[in-house]
Formats: sequence, C-alpha cells, structure tokens
Amino acid sequence: MGIKGIRTALKVDLDRHAREQPGLHNRWHPDIPACGNIANNEVVKIECLDWTGGQIKNNDSAEDVKNVDLTEIHYLSGPFDIETAEPGDVLVVEIQDVQPFQDQPWGFSGVFHRQNGGGFLDEHYPKAWVQLHSDMASAANDKPRAKAIWDFEGIFCSSRHIPGVRFAGLIHPGILGCAPSAEILAEWNRREGELIAANTVENRIVAQPPNPSNAHAGSAAEDIKSRVAREGARTIPGRPEHGGNCDIKNLSRGSKVYLPVHVPGAKFSVGDLHFSQGDGEISFCGAIEMAGEITLKFSVIKDGMAKLDMKSPIFHAGPVEPQFGPGRYLTFEGFSVDEKGKQHYLDATVAYRQTCLRVIEYLRRYGYSDYQIYLLLSCAPVQGHIAGIVDIPNACTTLGVPMDIFDFDIRPEAEVVKRNMGACAITSD
Amino acid sequence: MGIKGIRTALKVDLDRHAREQPGLHNRWHPDIPACGNIANNEVVKIECLDWTGGQIKNNDSAEDVKNVDLTEIHYLSGPFDIETAEPGDVLVVEIQDVQPFQDQPWGFSGVFHRQNGGGFLDEHYPKAWVQLHSDMASAANDKPRAKAIWDFEGIFCSSRHIPGVRFAGLIHPGILGCAPSAEILAEWNRREGELIAANTVENRIVAQPPNPSNAHAGSAAEDIKSRVAREGARTIPGRPEHGGNCDIKNLSRGSKVYLPVHVPGAKFSVGDLHFSQGDGEISFCGAIEMAGEITLKFSVIKDGMAKLDMKSPIFHAGPVEPQFGPGRYLTFEGFSVDEKGKQHYLDATVAYRQTCLRVIEYLRRYGYSDYQIYLLLSCAPVQGHIAGIVDIPNACTTLGVPMDIFDFDIRPEAEVVKRNMGACAITSD
Amino acid sequence: MGIKGIRTALKVDLDRHAREQPGLHNRWHPDIPACGNIANNEVVKIECLDWTGGQIKNNDSAEDVKNVDLTEIHYLSGPFDIETAEPGDVLVVEIQDVQPFQDQPWGFSGVFHRQNGGGFLDEHYPKAWVQLHSDMASAANDKPRAKAIWDFEGIFCSSRHIPGVRFAGLIHPGILGCAPSAEILAEWNRREGELIAANTVENRIVAQPPNPSNAHAGSAAEDIKSRVAREGARTIPGRPEHGGNCDIKNLSRGSKVYLPVHVPGAKFSVGDLHFSQGDGEISFCGAIEMAGEITLKFSVIKDGMAKLDMKSPIFHAGPVEPQFGPGRYLTFEGFSVDEKGKQHYLDATVAYRQTCLRVIEYLRRYGYSDYQIYLLLSCAPVQGHIAGIVDIPNACTTLGVPMDIFDFDIRPEAEVVKRNMGACAITSD
Amino acid sequence: MGIKGIRTALKVDLDRHAREQPGLHNRWHPDIPACGNIANNEVVKIECLDWTGGQIKNNDSAEDVKNVDLTEIHYLSGPFDIETAEPGDVLVVEIQDVQPFQDQPWGFSGVFHRQNGGGFLDEHYPKAWVQLHSDMASAANDKPRAKAIWDFEGIFCSSRHIPGVRFAGLIHPGILGCAPSAEILAEWNRREGELIAANTVENRIVAQPPNPSNAHAGSAAEDIKSRVAREGARTIPGRPEHGGNCDIKNLSRGSKVYLPVHVPGAKFSVGDLHFSQGDGEISFCGAIEMAGEITLKFSVIKDGMAKLDMKSPIFHAGPVEPQFGPGRYLTFEGFSVDEKGKQHYLDATVAYRQTCLRVIEYLRRYGYSDYQIYLLLSCAPVQGHIAGIVDIPNACTTLGVPMDIFDFDIRPEAEVVKRNMGACAITSD
Repeated sequence: MGIKGIRTALKVDLDRHAREQPGLHNRWHPDIPACGNIANNEVVKIECLDWTGGQIKNNDSAEDVKNVDLTEIHYLSGPFDIETAEPGDVLVVEIQDVQPFQDQPWGFSGVFHRQNGGGFLDEHYPKAWVQLHSDMASAANDKPRAKAIWDFEGIFCSSRHIPGVRFAGLIHPGILGCAPSAEILAEWNRREGELIAANTVENRIVAQPPNPSNAHAGSAAEDIKSRVAREGARTIPGRPEHGGNCDIKNLSRGSKVYLPVHVPGAKFSVGDLHFSQGDGEISFCGAIEMAGEITLKFSVIKDGMAKLDMKSPIFHAGPVEPQFGPGRYLTFEGFSVDEKGKQHYLDATVAYRQTCLRVIEYLRRYGYSDYQIYLLLSCAPVQGHIAGIVDIPNACTTLGVPMDIFDFDIRPEAEVVKRNMGACAITSD
Repeated sequence: MGIKGIRTALKVDLDRHAREQPGLHNRWHPDIPACGNIANNEVVKIECLDWTGGQIKNNDSAEDVKNVDLTEIHYLSGPFDIETAEPGDVLVVEIQDVQPFQDQPWGFSGVFHRQNGGGFLDEHYPKAWVQLHSDMASAANDKPRAKAIWDFEGIFCSSRHIPGVRFAGLIHPGILGCAPSAEILAEWNRREGELIAANTVENRIVAQPPNPSNAHAGSAAEDIKSRVAREGARTIPGRPEHGGNCDIKNLSRGSKVYLPVHVPGAKFSVGDLHFSQGDGEISFCGAIEMAGEITLKFSVIKDGMAKLDMKSPIFHAGPVEPQFGPGRYLTFEGFSVDEKGKQHYLDATVAYRQTCLRVIEYLRRYGYSDYQIYLLLSCAPVQGHIAGIVDIPNACTTLGVPMDIFDFDIRPEAEVVKRNMGACAITSD
Repeated sequence: MGIKGIRTALKVDLDRHAREQPGLHNRWHPDIPACGNIANNEVVKIECLDWTGGQIKNNDSAEDVKNVDLTEIHYLSGPFDIETAEPGDVLVVEIQDVQPFQDQPWGFSGVFHRQNGGGFLDEHYPKAWVQLHSDMASAANDKPRAKAIWDFEGIFCSSRHIPGVRFAGLIHPGILGCAPSAEILAEWNRREGELIAANTVENRIVAQPPNPSNAHAGSAAEDIKSRVAREGARTIPGRPEHGGNCDIKNLSRGSKVYLPVHVPGAKFSVGDLHFSQGDGEISFCGAIEMAGEITLKFSVIKDGMAKLDMKSPIFHAGPVEPQFGPGRYLTFEGFSVDEKGKQHYLDATVAYRQTCLRVIEYLRRYGYSDYQIYLLLSCAPVQGHIAGIVDIPNACTTLGVPMDIFDFDIRPEAEVVKRNMGACAITSD
Repeated sequence: MGIKGIRTALKVDLDRHAREQPGLHNRWHPDIPACGNIANNEVVKIECLDWTGGQIKNNDSAEDVKNVDLTEIHYLSGPFDIETAEPGDVLVVEIQDVQPFQDQPWGFSGVFHRQNGGGFLDEHYPKAWVQLHSDMASAANDKPRAKAIWDFEGIFCSSRHIPGVRFAGLIHPGILGCAPSAEILAEWNRREGELIAANTVENRIVAQPPNPSNAHAGSAAEDIKSRVAREGARTIPGRPEHGGNCDIKNLSRGSKVYLPVHVPGAKFSVGDLHFSQGDGEISFCGAIEMAGEITLKFSVIKDGMAKLDMKSPIFHAGPVEPQFGPGRYLTFEGFSVDEKGKQHYLDATVAYRQTCLRVIEYLRRYGYSDYQIYLLLSCAPVQGHIAGIVDIPNACTTLGVPMDIFDFDIRPEAEVVKRNMGACAITSD
C-alpha cells in the first residue's frame, strides 16, 4: 500500500524571478485570481519565497540591503480558494509546521535606511552609530544600513555577524490573511490616504499608498493586473479587518488563527516566513527572514464572524514555544519620556522605543556594536509587554531578554568582559 | 534557643487615617524624612495600606469609588534609609513574598470617572454602557463608576461581582522606587508641566502637577511638609529615573529589581500592593488592590548605575508565575485604526485600546456586562504584547486571555451559553 | 462592616508536647475521635507541628537526629469530620496555601541511621562517608546521621549547612488522607504483616507493624486509646486506599486532591508539612520539614469512588510550581545494574538509587560532602522520572537537577572550582 | 555563491531490506566497522529506519505485530567514527532536529505478546482484555496483540485507532550511544547471563542473551560478522556504561547528551526514532515508532569522563518541550501493593504498574478499550514520577496525564459521556 505525504499546494522556484511566478503576488486585492483550491479540513504544504523575493544574499556585504526595492515586497504565496468559505465565515488556519528549505538553511535580518523602510529606532541609529564609531564617521553620511546572516542548525540559529548568541527559533509566518472585499479595500485606501494627506510626522513616510511600480497580481489577465496595480493595498501594514502583516512572533507551530472571510473562497495568502522574531520586530526587517515551507490545515466556521463577534483575527498559540523560565529573562523598563526629556501622554510607542534603547545601552558593554544589538533585539525571542497604560502621563513598557540565548552570563551580578564581537555587514553610502 | 521571624520594619494601622501615620507618605520628594533604617543585605517585612488608604470598602455599592479623593493617593510605606546606599549606586530589591493581611483576605478593582482617574477605555465606557443597558439609561448621566470586590482563598481569588472566574494571583507591588534628587524632581515638574501647558488632548487631564491638597510628607516638620506639598511629584505616573508606579505585573514573589539611587540612603518607598493585575492595568484602578505585607531583601551595588549603564530600573522575575501553557491563552489582535476608522501612525496605545475592545466584544457573549469585562481585563493575568511596531502605518498589539481562569469553556469552538452573570457594583450619578 | 479572615480549624501549641494536644494523633485508625467539624465547601486553616512534633532543633548538632524517637511520628492534625461525607464518596481537597509560621521561618532535613528510619541510600552512606573522609574514620562507627537547617526568606530557602544553593520551595503537605475503615485497616495489617514475616530483605526493617509505644489517639477515651495503640497503622508508608504519606512534591499551592472516603465524616487528617522536597524524598527525612499552617477547601463528590472508578487518590497540581525551563535541568541517568555489577530485572528502585549516586559523584567535584548532596537531593525540587521500564532487563530512571538553584555554574561545560563548602551537622556515635 | 544544506552522513533505503544496508547494524559490538566519519564539531543528518526495519505496515491489521521478529531489532544507523574521540573522552551530541520522512508522515505503536517482547502490563492485558470484552472471548486465546497507526500533521499526531486524542510529539531518538569496549561487552554478557541463569521470574524471559539469528554487523567481513553475531549485545536494554536504548522522552530537539567514549573514534550509533513517548514507554513498542532523519552536532570533551566524574550519560533537555501548565495534568498515584493485595518492599516498578492501571480504569469510562489506553499511555507525553521511595514499605509513583491531548474534558468534575471509540487493530490467535 502506498503511503504518501501531504500535498504541496504551491511550489516556488528559487532560481526564477518572483514576478514571473504566477502563484505569488505582492498586493492585497479581491480580484487577484486564486492560484489553487484547498478543501475544507485539508492539510497542505505551501512553499514561500523570502519577503523580498530573493533580493538579499548570504554574504558579508550590506549593498543588497541598501539597494532593496520595497515596491516589490512582500511576495506572498496564494491566493487560495478554500472550499465552502463565504464572506462572514471564519477561516481557521492551524499552523502545523514551518521549515526552511532543507538546502537553504539560512536567513537574514537587516536595518534599512529611514527613507527605505526604516525601523523602530531609525531616528537614533544613523546618528548614534556615527557618534559611537567616530573612526567610521568619514565614511558615514547618515545612511548606514546593516545586515546579519543567520545559519540554522536544526531548531537553533546563530550568526557570524552577532557572535555569542544562539537560540531556538519560534518559527512563524509574518503574514497570513484573506483577501479584502472591494469595500474593505476602499476603506483601507481612504483612511491611509487621509493619514498621508494629514502629513503629521515631519520628514517621514507615514504610510505607503497603492503603487503600480513592480506590482505583481499573480496570474491575472492584463486588465485586472492594471487594476490591482492601481488599487491594490500594499502588504506592509497589518490591518484590523484581516490581519495580514501582523508579525506576531507567537503564531508558531501548533497555533490556530481565526481569520475573517471577506470574499467568496476566502482567497487566503501567506508569506514572509520568519525563523525567529522579537516582539515589535524592532528593525523593520528585523525578523530572521527566510524562504521555506509552511504546513497548514484549513477549516471553515460558517457565519463565524457573527458567532464570535469577531472584528480582527484571534489566535491561540501552539504548545511548543521555546521555554525560558520567568527568572531567566532580564527585563528592561521604558516610559513615555523621550531622549530629549519631552513628556508624551500615555504613548506606548515612545515608551517601547525607550525600552529598546535601554537594552542597547546595557548590551553595548559586552563589545557589541549598536547595530548588532538592534538586529538582535529584532529577531531574538524577546518579550515586549505593555506594563502600565493608565498612569498619566506615562505609559510603561517592558522588554524581557532571555538570558539563555547568550553564551556568556549577562546577569547584572556577573562580571562584564568586553569581547571582540566582530561586526555585522554595514554599508553607509 | 529562641528563633524569631523576620523583622517588620513598618507596621500600619488599618483603623487610623493614613495621613496620621508617620511611616506613610503620598508624594515623591527628597526631603521626606526616612521612617527607618535597613541594613545592607537585610531582609525585612513592610506593611502597606491599600493605595487609597482605606477609602474603598468591602460592600456592594460603588459610592466610595465615586467619592474617592485622588489627591490623597498613593499612600506609600517609607521612605527607608538603606545603609551604605549613595547616589549612583543601584539598590537591588528582592521581593521575597507579598501577602494580604491574614484577617483582611479581600481586595477591590474599580472603574473611575474620566475626570477622576479615568481608565484606558474611558472614552468608550460611559457611552457603551448606556447603550448596552438602556434600561439603566435614565439613571445614567454619563458618569458611571464600577467596583468589584475580590475574595482571596489562599493563592486564588474570585469575585461575587464577576462570577465564573477564579485564578491564582501574580501578587506584586504596583509601586516601588527610591526618592528623586532635587534635580530629578525639578526635571519631572518641568517636563510634565510642559505637557500640561501644551494641552494636547482635548477635554482631558493629561498629567497631575504638584498639589498641596492632602499631601502627606510622613514625619516631616512643618517647613519641609509645606515644601513637599508644594513641590512633591504626584505618585501616579511611573517615571524612567526611578520606576515608581510602573505597575508591572511580573514583579512578583522571587523577583529582583535593580533601582537607581539618587539620594543618600536611597530613601526607598513601596506600596500599592496588587493581588493580581493584567498587562496595562487597563481600568486605572484595575489591579486587585489590597492592603498587606511585603518581604524584601535589600542589597547595594556600589556605583551600579555606571557599571550597568542603567537609566531606568531593570528586573528579573521570580520562578513562580502562574503557568498557563501557551496553548491555553486565547489571544486577540488590535491595530492602530480607531473605532471611527481613523488611521493612526504606529500608535501602540491606540492599538492596545482596540485590542481590549475586541476582548470585550468576545466575552460579552457569555452574559457579562462590559463593565465586568473591563474590570476583569484589568486584574486578571492577561498578557499584553507589542507584536509589530514597524509596519507603517499600523502598530499591532495582542492581548492573551488565559482560558483557564474561567469555569466554562471560552474556546471559539465551544458552544456559547449566555448566563446570568449578575453585575458589578455600579453608580452613575 | 466587619471583615474577618478564614477560620482556623485547629491551633497547635509549639511549647507543649505533641502528645498532650488532643487535636493531634500519630496512628491511622477509624476510631480516633474527630477533633472538629468542617462544612462541605468550607475553607479553613489548619495548623500543624513538624512531623516529629518538635524533636529537631535549629542548631548545628545532629544529636537530636540521632535520638529521634520514630514511634512518635508522624504527628498529624485531625481527624476532621467533613459534613455530608460518607463511605464511597470522594473528598476534594484544594490546597489553597501552605505557610511556615511567621515567627518560625526555618526547617530541617536529616539523614537517619539505617536502623532508625534509614533512607534511600542508607547502604551507601555510612560506608561511602567513611571512605571519603578517612580523617573522620576513627570517629565513625558506621552510624553517621546528618542534619541541615534551612532558613526561609519569603518563598526561598537556603542553608548554612549546604552553601551555594538557594531555591524557591514547592511547599506542600507530605501527608493527607482520610481514615481507613476497620476492614481496610485489617487489610493493611495483614499484608504488611506478611511482608515482615517473609523477611525478604536481610538485616533490614521492611515495614513497621502497629506499635503501642508512644501511640497518640487524640482525644480518645482510655479503651479506644488502647485499641488504637494496639491496631493503629503506622503513618510511615503511603497506602493505595487513602494516600497518606505519599510525599508528592507537587501537591503544592493550588492543587486539588481527590481522596476516597472510607468512614462516615471522612475523618480527614493532614501533617508533615514540607517547605520543599525532591522526587523520592531520598533521605527519608529528606524534605525540608517544618511546622506551619495549611489552608484547605473541602468539597464532597457523592458516590465519587464509583463515578471516577477510583481506587487511589488522584490530583491535579496548581499553576504556581517554580519554573525552570527544560533546558535548565541537568539530568542524570541510572539503570537497574547495581554498584556491584549485579543485573536486576526491570527494577526502577535500583535504577533510581543508581541515578542518585551519579548526581552525588558529579556534585562532589564542587567541594560538597556526600552527606550534603544526599540532603540536598532530598529536598531540592529535583525531578525523578521513570524513563524506560520495559526494555529487559534494565529499567532506566532519570533525575533532573535544576541548575538555577546553585549560585555557581554546574553545566558540564563550565570550569569546576572546588570550594570550601563547610559541612552539615554530623554525628557518628 | 552556492549555499548548501547540512551533509547527510547516512542515507537509508526504505525499499530494501535493512539487513542488506551496510550503514545499519542491530547488535552492540566494538568490532562493527564504522560506516562513516564525522568531524569534531560537525553537524550532520543521519537517516534511520524504524526500529523493526520496516516490518510494521500502515494498515488496520495486527498480524504484523504478531509476526514481528525481534531477533532483528533494533536497526541502528552507524557506527560513526568521530574525529579525535578516544576512550575516556565524552562525546557531546546535540540533537538539533528529528523529523519523519516527508513522504512517510506516520508511525505506529504496538502491544506485543508476553513471550515476544511483552510490555509493562503484560500480565494484566491478555486477561483483562478477555474479561472486559467477553464477546471477543471466543477468539481470544490469551495472546492478543494490538496496533495503532498514528498520522502526523506537522508537529501533531492523531490515530484513527484511538479517536479523541491529538497532541504535539516530543520527538526523540529512543537509542543513541557509543560502542562498548571489549571489556564492557564482556561485563554485559556476564551480568545479564547471571540474571538469566538465576531465573528469578517465573515463566518469563528476563533478558536476551547474544543471539546469532538475524544479527546484522553492518559492513563487517565474514569473520567479524560471526563474532559479532556470537558475542554482540542485544540492543533492547539501555545500559549504564553507554546509555543505548534508554527511551528518555525528553531527549528531544535542542537537547545535549553527554556520552562516555569507550573505543577509538567513539563508534556512535543512533536509531529507534520516536515521534512521541510517555515516561516508561509502557507497552514496550509503546512509543510512536517511525523512520526519519535526525540532525546531530558532535563535539568531543577530551578526558571528559574523569573531568565530569561520569559513569552514565547525562543530558540537558532542549527548550521546546510541549508545554501544558502544571494544572493541566491529571495525576494518578500508585503504590507498591499489587492487585492481589501483596505488599512489596519499596518497589517502584510495582508502584508504577499500579499507577498505570489506575489510569486505565479512569479512562475506560469514556469508551476506550483497555488496549487503546495501554497504547495511548505508552506514547502520549505522560509524566511518570517517583514520588516517595523511602517510606517503608511503600514506594509511591505518580503518572500525570496532560488533559489537553483529549478533545473532550477529562477533569473529574466533568460529565462522563461514553463514546464509540472504535478499536485499535487487534489480533489474538
């Protein structure tokens, strides 16, 4: 009797440009045609490129990070039509496994320039970096980008660019969701357009409007292709109506996600696989990005949105998160007072940024460059909590760093030995 | 040979007004005199009143919540001079135990009016409440306050006002910290004053300036007392320089906190004991507030601030947090799009508020009133994470609700039976 | 309105001999009169002496361990009549809290002589000790006993007799159970009598028959007293029909135990409180023994034994066990081949003894004496698992030592520094 | 630049008889030639057949279990020469990953006849089964064997033969170890021979002596082959000197094992992969047996046996064990009194067998056959602890069943609904 494995619903080709592969797409739009069908209660494997479609290479130069073209991203696998799914249903997606490709056991993290993706600390990191490394100041014209390559050893990863650290990945997809309806898409474009128009944050891109450049609409015919290019929502933000790029590190093996369905067949897509990520994905391309394969089980709850009174996805995590006892985290506090002494009103974003800076200051003592730590914080399984959000005017957030990921002792009680920690790949022109 | 217990460094009197007890105080100021000395490496017990100094009673009326006087709060125990501590040192405080008083095995949570403390959902909760409970609308003039009383049974708590829920408390102090120096106090008053002056948030108190009314400066002589009343920082916000009211639920039994020292002797204070709290302490008086006793061990790291490159407190949690496997949380997602469809730019505070609302909508289906859930979210050991903070324009936050705290099954797959859940204490005039 | 604490159902007097206190007893017998009544669903506190009734003192001599009189033990609190409980019911006991007395924050562990209690390694430890410490050989006549005193600091304990170790206790009662019926008591005496008669193990006491000496039957009248003394089962072994001295370290705060009821009113007793214990309670008096107070909630499942098809107690543990991530245990393996090279057939007892010896050999390298490790293994929260029990002829057991209880690094990779570890209290005449 | 995956040090062929594959062997002997070399600090993948070499099929008949030939087992992959390893060293093996073959996502558990492998409850299970299922009594001549097939869905498994159960596997190798030296091999044969000769257990095979039948010595030349056949130790028991078939469920992804080296090059072998197993591997072929691939990293500690004072392997577990909070186990107690009322002296094996029977009685109520539960207990991640091993005459063991593996509620408080649970594959002639 023949036993066979789980069906692979989509294969990708690492040697062909992502844009030429009809099972991929890089915009959210209801009219992108389905690339396949999946039965209700079926288990399938889906292959994915890394989010950039292969623009970043396993080498020691950050030139590719400098030149990355963000109009192309994120390349998602799909959309898939799920049998029986109708608008108003809930699609339950069980993430049974995520794996890198066997012959590609590596991933990358990057720090991008502020005008090209940026990152959570992008107002600090050009300058801070220049100040701290004044010998490099001549080369630095305020535009450094950094990269770290991570090697996978089974469930663990380590990086030649950030020595002294090794941990088990909490592997997960950064993006999964169902296609928006036309109405929802219009609402996205409306509200994000208002934000762009209001232009509240000086000298900064606050949102990405639809952009025809490099839009990929899968196997769509020409007329649909151009509509998708014109109207399709960018994949960068997660959005309440469908989840999307929510970058939740806990959506790992064994998790179940409950997704609202907005179009017939659900038109489910997935991509942006991460070998590991910290809460916040601090440096934008902060997770350990990889190509690989995800095993998913799909089941439909009829009329689920009303039954669950559900407006945004919910999930429960699987049972196999890496375990560090609560006493094995070293936790830092941050408050909504910024580095210039300005008091912000209950602003968890400001507080979390300060918390990140506190960790950088602490870990710097061991010989790491700020960029190394910035990359590490983004991809290691750090825990970012909202501790207090009501005690005016300060929000308080915490960031817990698992001490067991270091091969030396980082407890405050332990002696600090400054080591030669090498460097991550950096470019600054 | 006589064995004796650990020394109690401060006793409080539950039957006497807090203001008359010289070992308490309710402002941060370097000149409040120490109420006792503690040796380096000593273990002591310190008794604490609840944060209001006993204004809230164990009954079924919310009148006391309505009438609470916030100029009085928080009553802290201390300050204590710690032997050998000098500015620039770090004071390590090990929280060895926290217990309610044996003959006072109860606590409370409250929802306050927006103009009197407020809460994280205070723009939703007068209105939502009126809409949902239209039979009460006549009584409601937009000013409801709510209260729940919690009974302690060993490590567990349950409330007659929120049936169907019972859980082990992650018991902790809401406030601990060392006194500010004069310079730091001046900086606090400056930056918070600027925020108040800028008046950025309409129709809302954004910060509390020094307020002589009901100020309590411990055993200070008259001249100092009036200076403290005039200048002393309010205890409501946590602040980066010393921690203070950081309301971190994980600072429980067995945790170690590393606190910056700013004045000779450190002048350490503690109070605002919580039997349990959820991340964010969502309803302001959201934790289960109680009077009780805390056992602390103090040790000094000389010149610790420089050695640790430390600007804000850090901690590591003890080994006995209540354990719910990762698959026993049901987790909700929220994004920085508010309920009116307005897009905010990477605003974790907006996202976390939306996440809270998603939980309320979900739990409402079981028969709970919104106020019950609001109170529950604030005090149950929910996990509030910053999931994604870089994908413009949306921040994504998550809120994990431990399913095991309910005595019925709240999984999405389980049948929903609407129950009679009674009510919490409410007042609305 | 007056709030009052939980009722204390039994108080003990630390200054009066245990035998004179009518709420205590030290034999299992259905005719011992109840010392109090507890309502169905009631929560009460019950005070307990330590298991010896106070024979062991907080000092540095092991003379008291040498002279301990085991005919007296264990002093249990009770029995209590539980309202509505009848034979065939199941009594659910929720362990809400266990605490040492506030003014007695200490406990003890001991190694007894083989003829007086013994211990799991009692065939190794006189000899091994003499061989290893030949300078003490003159004093040693094969009868050493050892003692360690532990000081409690909140949830933690440490011992001046075993330096370098400190951990959070998994506090629990060693003994709890309901009284046997007359029939069950007769069965106990029959089967244990047969074992004693068969005399299968050379030169060793294999079980303790009823012994009138020092029997304490609570408040029983003279005729009952002498019957109890004559027939009453000793409290040393746990027994399948009621649990009793099962010494399960996980019956800690928040656990629920389901106990068979054999007599009207259940006649529940509890005692032998442990601040901490390792799996196996390896050195007999291996737990950290203490006097203290236990908070229990009782509820009755009518006809529960049939409903649950239950012959022996079952339980589920509470949510607050101290947490060491799985990677923070160093685990040793042992097999059913004894130290003389004799092969035993699937004997988990032999295998577990070998496992213990492996740990002793490993930890000896740090400067600990074998007796210190023997005591430590017995009371620290080590995990003893039955790994393989079917691969003839070897049973395999494992013993996991939490590395975080040591204040130095015991990983195999870490450098070994032999330290001066002092000594535990020892006597050997 | 070409990236390539981790080297596969041994490939197996599922379509060819195990005996014909020179990289496999099924006896322990120092003279079996190495099938490959591995560098110190190298990471490799090693493929393995299932322990029987493919004798058990994915179908609904237990005929294959009946006819299994145990002289063939266990087929191990290896031995491998590890660069630099010498006798007296310790070989550190990091288990980086274990995976079933992608196109073979299934495994099996079996109950064997007492004369052919048996199992921990083999004295109960022919009889009990006949009594409980009297309709099948005619067919049953006291020799039933049972089988369950498990399907893998990512990290989860479920069985059509044991419905209502699904759990994440704690995947691990049942066997790993280095070859014995000639001296150690002689000692094994001596001591196991003595046990066989002494014949202490009536009507039962107590150990397996060397058996030339079906011996497989890898690529050995004829003369060595016959020596290995004649002298080679069977792979069934784990043994203290090298570990071997220790069947420790926690040796999962991310674990490090420290193995004594007894011959030049270590001659490391591995096999008997398990998708999941419970403590004790109760039904002999109790784990979920599978073929697959293991990723290992090897490093040598020179002179490690002396440095670590190590006689038997030690390990520490990886960070990704499936997590069920301590309150999500239902735990059963067993004591060393057997089912005939006979009292055994501190016998943990008897106690653990009783504990298993308690669970079977409990779970029977839901409609499972005893054979289904017997199989389930063997392969689900149950926790088997030695609770008390010193309280004469009773040993107490516990067995914790994670409640979350069932899709119905097994708490004692929950209503019992007897279901149609189908059957496992059974044969009884």
